[in-house]
Amino acid sequence: MTLKFEVLKTIGKTRRGKLYTKHGVINTPAFMPVGTCGTVKAMMPESVAATGAEILLGNTYHLMLRPGADLVEKMGGLHKFMNWDKPILTDSGGFQVMSLSGLRKIGEDGVNFASHIDGKRFFLSPEESMKIQYKLDSNITMCFDECVKLPSPYDVVKRSVEMSMRWAERSKKAFIDRDGYGIFGIQQGGDYEDLRAFSAEKLRKIGFDGYAIGGLAVGEGQQKMFEVLDYAPEMLPFDKPRYLMGVGRPDDIVGAVLRGVDMFDCVMPTRSGRTSQAFTRFGTINIRNSRHREDYRPLEEGCDCPLCSHYSRAYIHHLQKAGEVLAVMLLTWHNIRYYQRLMAQIRQAIESDTLNDFAAQFYQDLAQGDIKEL
Amino acid sequence: MTLKFEVLKTIGKTRRGKLYTKHGVINTPAFMPVGTCGTVKAMMPESVAATGAEILLGNTYHLMLRPGADLVEKMGGLHKFMNWDKPILTDSGGFQVMSLSGLRKIGEDGVNFASHIDGKRFFLSPEESMKIQYKLDSNITMCFDECVKLPSPYDVVKRSVEMSMRWAERSKKAFIDRDGYGIFGIQQGGDYEDLRAFSAEKLRKIGFDGYAIGGLAVGEGQQKMFEVLDYAPEMLPFDKPRYLMGVGRPDDIVGAVLRGVDMFDCVMPTRSGRTSQAFTRFGTINIRNSRHREDYRPLEEGCDCPLCSHYSRAYIHHLQKAGEVLAVMLLTWHNIRYYQRLMAQIRQAIESDTLNDFAAQFYQDLAQGDIKEL
Repeated sequence: MTLKFEVLKTIGKTRRGKLYTKHGVINTPAFMPVGTCGTVKAMMPESVAATGAEILLGNTYHLMLRPGADLVEKMGGLHKFMNWDKPILTDSGGFQVMSLSGLRKIGEDGVNFASHIDGKRFFLSPEESMKIQYKLDSNITMCFDECVKLPSPYDVVKRSVEMSMRWAERSKKAFIDRDGYGIFGIQQGGDYEDLRAFSAEKLRKIGFDGYAIGGLAVGEGQQKMFEVLDYAPEMLPFDKPRYLMGVGRPDDIVGAVLRGVDMFDCVMPTRSGRTSQAFTRFGTINIRNSRHREDYRPLEEGCDCPLCSHYSRAYIHHLQKAGEVLAVMLLTWHNIRYYQRLMAQIRQAIESDTLNDFAAQFYQDLAQGDIKEL
Repeated sequence: MTLKFEVLKTIGKTRRGKLYTKHGVINTPAFMPVGTCGTVKAMMPESVAATGAEILLGNTYHLMLRPGADLVEKMGGLHKFMNWDKPILTDSGGFQVMSLSGLRKIGEDGVNFASHIDGKRFFLSPEESMKIQYKLDSNITMCFDECVKLPSPYDVVKRSVEMSMRWAERSKKAFIDRDGYGIFGIQQGGDYEDLRAFSAEKLRKIGFDGYAIGGLAVGEGQQKMFEVLDYAPEMLPFDKPRYLMGVGRPDDIVGAVLRGVDMFDCVMPTRSGRTSQAFTRFGTINIRNSRHREDYRPLEEGCDCPLCSHYSRAYIHHLQKAGEVLAVMLLTWHNIRYYQRLMAQIRQAIESDTLNDFAAQFYQDLAQGDIKEL
C-alpha cells in the first residue's frame, strides 16, 4: 500500500485526483497510451511525454516473450530500457493469455500457453506474473486474473470471478512492496451486479493501492458497459484510483468519467494512427479519403500537435497514399495528443465546476460530426 | 546565375565553401539527405534539421507522379508542403526515368514513360522538367540529362553526352531565373576523359550556378569512380559548387572531397536505417545480429544522436526483432547524424588545416573496423 492517492475534488460521481509514484505524479482522470513491446508504436518517448501523457501501459505478455523479463531487468528495468522516466503500469498478461484460444490451458494454478511468436511454451500464474512485473520495474502492478467474454452464463462468470479473487489474494501475497510502487486489484463479475459486488468485497478485504474494473470492453457494446458502470465503480473504495481497463473511444471515456472512473488505457489512438484514422472533436476522419487530396486545412482546427500545427490534410493524404512512415508518426502523435487534450479538458472542467457544460458540448460536437462532412 | 557561392579556403583540391540560397546558407562540403516523396523517410523535418542537414534533395520523378507538381505548387511549394524551410535541391527526373527499362522511350525531344505506380503515361523533357522543378519551388534545379550505365562503349557514351549537352542548353533556356534560386549543369561522359572534358566545356559555355558530376556511382566501383574524380572536378569552374550525384558511402565521400567535390546526396543513410544497418566510424553494424541482444553499449560511442544518447544496443536489437517502427526512426536518425557529423568534421578539418590527419584517422578507423568485432 505504498502509492498515495488524493481525491482533490468531486462533481457527482466524477473525481479529480492525483496518484503519486516513484517516477512521478499522475493527474486523474488520466489516459495511458499503450507501449506494448516497450515502445509506443511510431513515437519517440519524448514525443509521448510532449502529448501530456504522464503514464504508459506496458504488456507483460509481450515483454515476457520478447525480449524477456530477465533481459529487461538486467538492462535496468523498463523505464531505462525504453527511455521513459515517468510512471509505467503493466497488465498481468492474463488478458492476452486468455485470448490465445486453443493455445492455452487454464487451471487453478495458472495458465499454460504457447508463444504466438515461436510456439515456445510458457506458464503464467499470479506468482509468476508478479515476479515478471517486478523485474520490469512496473510502478503499478496488476493482479493476475481471468477475463471472460460477454455475454457469458451466470455460473461461468461466477466460477471465473471466484478463481480470479483467489488469484487476487495470491497476487497480493506475491507482490513485493516498495515505496512508490503499488498493486491494483481487478474487479470481475461480467454484467452481473451481485458478482461485481462479490468481487469488490473480496478485493477490499485483500486491500490494494487501486482497483481496476475488468471484463468490460470485450464486445458488449457501450450501452451494456455503461449499465455496469452505473453501479460498479461505486462498489470500489472511494479513496483509491479506479481504472477501467482497455477503454476506449473518447465518448466511452467521457461516459465512464461521469460514472466515477479515474484511469483508462486503450490501443485505439495508436492503432488508429496506423490505419489512417484521426480523432477530432467532431468524430474520426479517414485521411485516405480522396476528398482530402487538395485540402489546405489542418486535420483539426485548434489542435496544437505537430501534424495540425505544420501540415495540410493534403500532405498527410499524400504521405498515406505513398505509404510513408511519417504519416503513421504524425497521425499517432495527433491521436495521443487528442486523448491527452480530452483528459486535460475533463480535469479542467472538474476544477472549474463546468463538467456538465463540457460533457454537453462534447456530445453535441460529436453528434454534429455525424451530419457534416469533416 | 543567382546563387552566390564562396570558396572560403582550399587545401590541395579540397574546398570549404558557402552556398547562399533564398532559404538559407549551405556550408560545403555538404551532404543532402534524400526526401524522395516529400519526406525523409521515418524522420520529422525538425529532426532532419537537428542532425545538421542544411539542404534536402527531392525527387522530381516521384513528386510529379504523386502528388503531382500542380498540387505541390497549389499548396505553396515543396518547402511549405513538407514543412522544411531550408534549401531544397531537386533532381531532374532523368535518372529515375532512364532506370525504367522497358517502360520508357527516349528521343531527342525527351522521354515517354509509364508511371511505376499505375502505368499512366508521362512525358519528360528539359522544358517539362524545368517547369516541374519550378512548381516544386526547388532552390537548386538540375538540368534534364541522360545517364548511361558503366561500362558503356565509347560511341554510346559520346552520342549520349552530346544529347545531354543539347538538353543542358534547353534546360538553361527554359529555367526561370529568380533571386536565391539556381540551376546546376550535369557533366556526363562516363569514364572517358575526353568526353568529360567535352561535357565540362559545353556546360561552362552555357553557364550554370553549379556543376554536378553525373553518371558515376552506377556500378563501376570505387576505384573506377576515383579514377574519374582524379580529373573530372577540376574541369569544372573553380568558383562554383561541384556536386557528385548519388554518392555515397562515407569513404566514397571522403575520397571525393579530397578530389575537389563540394556536395553529395545518397539514400544510403536513410535506406540503411530501414535494413538495420548503422554507420559508425569503424564501419557498419547490423543491429539484428544476435550478439547485440544483451549489449548495454550505445550503438556508437561519442555520437550525440538520440539513439546513441538514450538507448542500448540491446533495446534497438529488441525493437528490430519486434518489427517496431521506432527502430527505423532511431537508426535513420543516427545514420543521417553520422553523415552530418562526418561532413562537419571534414569542414572543421579544412578550417583548422588538419585535413590530412583527419583523412588518415578516418581510413585507419575504418580499417580497424574490419578486424575487430564492432
